[in-house]
Amino acid sequence: MQSVRIAGVAVTPFGEHPERTGRDLFAQASDDALEGSGIPRTDIDEVLYGNFIGEVTEDQGHQGPLVAEVVGTTAASTRFESACASGGVAMRAGVRAVRSGDADVVLVGGMERMTNVDVHHATDALALAADDLHERRVGMTFPGAYALLTEAYFREYGGSREELAAVAVKNHENALDNENAHLQQEISTEDVLDAPPIAEPVGLYDACPISDGAAAVVLVSDEYTDEHDLDAPVAVTGTGQRSDTLALQRRANRAATPATEQAAEAAYEMAGVTAADIDLVEVHDCFTIAEVLAIEALGFYDPGEGISAAAAGETTRDGELPVNLSGGLKAKGHPVGATGVAQIAELTELLAGEHVHSDAVPDARVGLAHNAGGTVASAVVHVLEVVA
Amino acid sequence: MQSVRIAGVAVTPFGEHPERTGRDLFAQASDDALEGSGIPRTDIDEVLYGNFIGEVTEDQGHQGPLVAEVVGTTAASTRFESACASGGVAMRAGVRAVRSGDADVVLVGGMERMTNVDVHHATDALALAADDLHERRVGMTFPGAYALLTEAYFREYGGSREELAAVAVKNHENALDNENAHLQQEISTEDVLDAPPIAEPVGLYDACPISDGAAAVVLVSDEYTDEHDLDAPVAVTGTGQRSDTLALQRRANRAATPATEQAAEAAYEMAGVTAADIDLVEVHDCFTIAEVLAIEALGFYDPGEGISAAAAGETTRDGELPVNLSGGLKAKGHPVGATGVAQIAELTELLAGEHVHSDAVPDARVGLAHNAGGTVASAVVHVLEVVA
Repeated sequence: MQSVRIAGVAVTPFGEHPERTGRDLFAQASDDALEGSGIPRTDIDEVLYGNFIGEVTEDQGHQGPLVAEVVGTTAASTRFESACASGGVAMRAGVRAVRSGDADVVLVGGMERMTNVDVHHATDALALAADDLHERRVGMTFPGAYALLTEAYFREYGGSREELAAVAVKNHENALDNENAHLQQEISTEDVLDAPPIAEPVGLYDACPISDGAAAVVLVSDEYTDEHDLDAPVAVTGTGQRSDTLALQRRANRAATPATEQAAEAAYEMAGVTAADIDLVEVHDCFTIAEVLAIEALGFYDPGEGISAAAAGETTRDGELPVNLSGGLKAKGHPVGATGVAQIAELTELLAGEHVHSDAVPDARVGLAHNAGGTVASAVVHVLEVVA
Repeated sequence: MQSVRIAGVAVTPFGEHPERTGRDLFAQASDDALEGSGIPRTDIDEVLYGNFIGEVTEDQGHQGPLVAEVVGTTAASTRFESACASGGVAMRAGVRAVRSGDADVVLVGGMERMTNVDVHHATDALALAADDLHERRVGMTFPGAYALLTEAYFREYGGSREELAAVAVKNHENALDNENAHLQQEISTEDVLDAPPIAEPVGLYDACPISDGAAAVVLVSDEYTDEHDLDAPVAVTGTGQRSDTLALQRRANRAATPATEQAAEAAYEMAGVTAADIDLVEVHDCFTIAEVLAIEALGFYDPGEGISAAAAGETTRDGELPVNLSGGLKAKGHPVGATGVAQIAELTELLAGEHVHSDAVPDARVGLAHNAGGTVASAVVHVLEVVA
């Protein structure tokens, strides 16, 4: 197997860009990532691209060939959809394309355009990630679904809205200096607790915003890296993906996310590391409870202990395990198809010492990215390591 | 690299099943394919699944974990969308999963449910495969797009509606004995010529029907085949995929489909064969002109000669190169996400001597499947060979 190196990364500003088309946003990310890598687009062997609901928000399916056209290639170009894990799933396919030796250079990207439709339309569109028969058509949307997870967690382990608020406060603080973040605004615990409820116990500041944006990553083989003398110090050394029931009602325990746990086990095994080796992580914090569930399922904290660790500041910039230094989905924003790819981009820059927050983790060698779809019915985990 | 064997295949009856859910259709195909393979579902390492427009026709995105749940696994399960090539793209990912050594057993499937919405809604939904900015929003639907391709071909090379009709007549004849075919009805050249025009020069009988259905294929590694003493005589030896501009207006020549040509070149090279080695083919004949363009781009006929070859009967059951012995999309039906997988299933049975039409090709050793999306903006080609 080839080792997989990251030769270039880019993220567009996340936020409200209702006047920009999806192809325009993706062009910006892919142009920047390719330029950063120094690799000519004629060398691209494949394009792997994540998008969740382009059919609904932009009347555009079949975006694989569309983004190939944007990039200027007739290479194989495939669109992946796994709800909010679409970008992570595309990333995983890119890693396999290079590892298998089928490709030397792949462009992995993701994009979502969501603020061109009104917020109710966007919320309805996002609900297409839920089980239609058992959830969506009886009125469940994702704030409600994550309220159920929050309640289940509180019931099982205790914990309070105040403790959960620490996740939001931290991620907003991390986003302050991230020029691509959607919400560059400091918030207090009181702000979170006093925010309007959107599905109790979930309040407005427990939820990530609805954002537009794109991200791209250029993956290359070791061989190509050496031949072209590329500056690509970070490698993808582990990848894992697992599934869970689509409908929440079919789960034995709603205070846990086994798909994340199993995906992490696979990624750790492939990378030959354990949770103890991880220096920093980007996790899928679409709601505050999601970050807590993630850091437990990834093996950093025992079940029920993630919330007190977050409240105690262990996951802040100066904590033992910095989580979501980028600001996370909560404050960086969540243009769905782009999210999983943007996590890889931010993590790569953090590990390479090129991120605004790299100073907070000067000795970091191993990072982890966690991307999830729906109520973690799909989960993708990648391990990244500094190898050069 | 592992060699990739086909251990089980299944196709549901294609046709109008508006009362059946997508998950129900897929359960039938996946259960049958797994049962045929004799492989326990606990051995499935990954599920790769094609679906085009579930969000629009069934209010259901995020179908990856949904079909994993149907199958009864928590393995990685990914939904691929590449318009009418969604199934072929999923198949290609399944082949890579096994070839790379990442998986020993994968379930590749596809499903589309289309007749539960009215025909205008379905036609609008299919148009999401076209370029929204340049085609869909100015009113182009796929009958119109293929009318443009037909006109361009007639203008470039000559040819008539009567010659094209031979494709429809042949494929209807082939479907007569295929119990899973949507249209089991003999038609004459006059029927085709006298059918109502839907976008001149394309008439109703130049077009495939709108169908519901599902298909599934179990792929296994050589190693797993040997260890479990499986009956899996057919292997996938080549795969190729390429892209073209999404909008027709951006193409230099609308009488050719270079994405198919390039995908075939890649698949031939990987399999170590040429067009001359192929004994029978299943091609993407969503419209009659599509079959002609395909057999030219795949290298069986020079540009402009496919139409006279079809008219001369060279591609019939008893011809030199049997094309679409299954009945093709034209008569077997076209439940979009299932189509590319169903082609593999039919071709496997034909090569293994288990198809109703296997007698027509008793010495066949090498087959080819061609699946296309939009106006061949995406194309996927697989080469299958009898190896045991």
